[in-house]
Amino acid sequence: MDNAATTAPLPEVVDLIREDLSDPNQFGNPSSLHRLGMYSENRFSVAMNDIGKQLHVSADELILTSGGSESINTALLGFADANPRLGKHIISTKAEHMASLGALRRLEQMGYEITWVPTQKNGEPEWSFLEKSIRNDTLFITLTHVNNETGATLPVDRLVSLRNARNRKTAIHLDCVQSLGKLPINISALNIELASFSGHKIHCVKGVGLLYKKKGLRMSPLICGGGQQRGFRSGTESPWLARALALAIRKATERLDESLLSISECKRILCDKITCLGGVVLSPENGSPYILNAALGSIRSEILLHALEEHDIYISTVSACASKKNKTSHVLSAMDVAESIAKNAIRISFSRFTTEKDCRDFCQALEKTIKIYGIG
Amino acid sequence: MDNAATTAPLPEVVDLIREDLSDPNQFGNPSSLHRLGMYSENRFSVAMNDIGKQLHVSADELILTSGGSESINTALLGFADANPRLGKHIISTKAEHMASLGALRRLEQMGYEITWVPTQKNGEPEWSFLEKSIRNDTLFITLTHVNNETGATLPVDRLVSLRNARNRKTAIHLDCVQSLGKLPINISALNIELASFSGHKIHCVKGVGLLYKKKGLRMSPLICGGGQQRGFRSGTESPWLARALALAIRKATERLDESLLSISECKRILCDKITCLGGVVLSPENGSPYILNAALGSIRSEILLHALEEHDIYISTVSACASKKNKTSHVLSAMDVAESIAKNAIRISFSRFTTEKDCRDFCQALEKTIKIYGIG
Repeated sequence: MDNAATTAPLPEVVDLIREDLSDPNQFGNPSSLHRLGMYSENRFSVAMNDIGKQLHVSADELILTSGGSESINTALLGFADANPRLGKHIISTKAEHMASLGALRRLEQMGYEITWVPTQKNGEPEWSFLEKSIRNDTLFITLTHVNNETGATLPVDRLVSLRNARNRKTAIHLDCVQSLGKLPINISALNIELASFSGHKIHCVKGVGLLYKKKGLRMSPLICGGGQQRGFRSGTESPWLARALALAIRKATERLDESLLSISECKRILCDKITCLGGVVLSPENGSPYILNAALGSIRSEILLHALEEHDIYISTVSACASKKNKTSHVLSAMDVAESIAKNAIRISFSRFTTEKDCRDFCQALEKTIKIYGIG
Repeated sequence: MDNAATTAPLPEVVDLIREDLSDPNQFGNPSSLHRLGMYSENRFSVAMNDIGKQLHVSADELILTSGGSESINTALLGFADANPRLGKHIISTKAEHMASLGALRRLEQMGYEITWVPTQKNGEPEWSFLEKSIRNDTLFITLTHVNNETGATLPVDRLVSLRNARNRKTAIHLDCVQSLGKLPINISALNIELASFSGHKIHCVKGVGLLYKKKGLRMSPLICGGGQQRGFRSGTESPWLARALALAIRKATERLDESLLSISECKRILCDKITCLGGVVLSPENGSPYILNAALGSIRSEILLHALEEHDIYISTVSACASKKNKTSHVLSAMDVAESIAKNAIRISFSRFTTEKDCRDFCQALEKTIKIYGIG
């Protein structure tokens, strides 16, 4: 029940990795001129084409990275570095993932001005505030497609319309780490310029991610060197990781609608139980069903986490990346959730493999825990 | 015969990866507070400790990266960023790997001054020139431990002595991508501050690398975010990649001396044959035996590469990373090898699994090729 933190690799992905890594014809360096190199280069580009098809973009708009954090850092820092004349103003919110906040903090230190748009109770940005914030010198807007702590889902069309009306040169970067494989994503239809993805959130493996960069958009690389991946990301390409990611994306998207329905039911079951037990659901109703944020009265989130662990159920307090540092979720704070509630918030997050039975087991365990600790 | 470009993953490494990725207890996010997360965190730190022991450093001086290029970029850009008061002068040579040259070019654009020390015929830097170049404002010196095109090996002690005599605040970064697992490496005895390593050159997999950063040394991260790896490299850690790298290093170092002897014999066999056929060996005699650079008269290197391919023998012209761009090796140019010879240079590179029989087969194939094309 902590699939927003990470997911178990698919057996099919593990099998493919084993096959690829064992194949004596597949270990060549894609940059080598000989047959072994060319074979690897071909495997890499076939995989990238496959990913491109699934996301409705061209393969030469995609860059394979080591994960979501690298993608986000490359997008934000690389776009800023390559476009000094577009302006030094950036728009975002305080509810972004730490990777975005980290890159933004770095840009702030470098002299960029950041407008932090307030977040509404439903997790969406304050639209009128956002609209007014877009200026002639606004370099980019970076927002999250599906928030990793609450599931709040951004209506991308609305964002794109606002941007188009105010400044067409302002780029949009979307953190799609929690939406990939869970919402239908047609990047080219979204009409955005940059988007970041991660492998290990969709049952691929830790150590692989993806960056979409619209054709023609200027961006400096984060990693310089041999000029691999059209110069946007140096370092020997990993055909086997590209193939694993392509497979994981295909598997995640092939029954996306079906999963969306069944996970919505899972969310409903849990929401009902939580409300019935006197708890409060903090996730917006119209958010992604895959992420459910809630608080159960005054039961401290860490106590709940460890109590559920006794039932072999794993949840999280705030996001995994922030769990060891912050006591209270910066996302909930941004949404103006009262500190007294936010500090007890838990995140329950599903994968397409979560079943109704898992949810009923969860409800039972939750009920038992509440009986022991009371809801205060 | 192109092991400097990349190597085949060890079966033991592939088995370990398959086991790790299939284990339902091992996929947790090391940042998660629950048992699954703590288990992953533990696996990660045990692996990093293991690597630390083998390289004679503390685990908290190591950072797992996605490869050699990321390590080098993090070291050079991150050290420069975090130490603005140490000066804006850098020392290197034109014989470095593209990853170093790329990061240095970026620093040059940012206003850093770089002194390019000439390279001697034996591949070592001009020592007196280097000595005089070290100034009060020299931020760092970056050099390669074993050159990836010629095998030229840097006497690190000599470099460290010079630095210590002139400016103890000047940091030394060593590109150890081609020396790891081939030369004994005791980092703490070397008395350097930063060192970069790659997994796929030592029979691990593409997508993992390592950075050594001496305790207490200030360095900014290249990838910002959740603050993993003590803030020096954000992004979810990959315990399975750390474990695979630890195993690959252990396997590479356990019979290092034995391999060094047998590969020296391989190099001798090939050198003899090349000389006997009228070719010229361009690698320095006292360099690493794992890399042999040579030219066979006026036979163009690409013709030789493809002719040997017919015998299922794979070599390279320049480094894999540069093979699709440069006609002539920038390393050989830096060593002042005549353009007419350098443009025909080939690189033959061994792994510890290369046998004398492989070498004799190579010699036969080479002889046949020479008979067809003549040596000009």
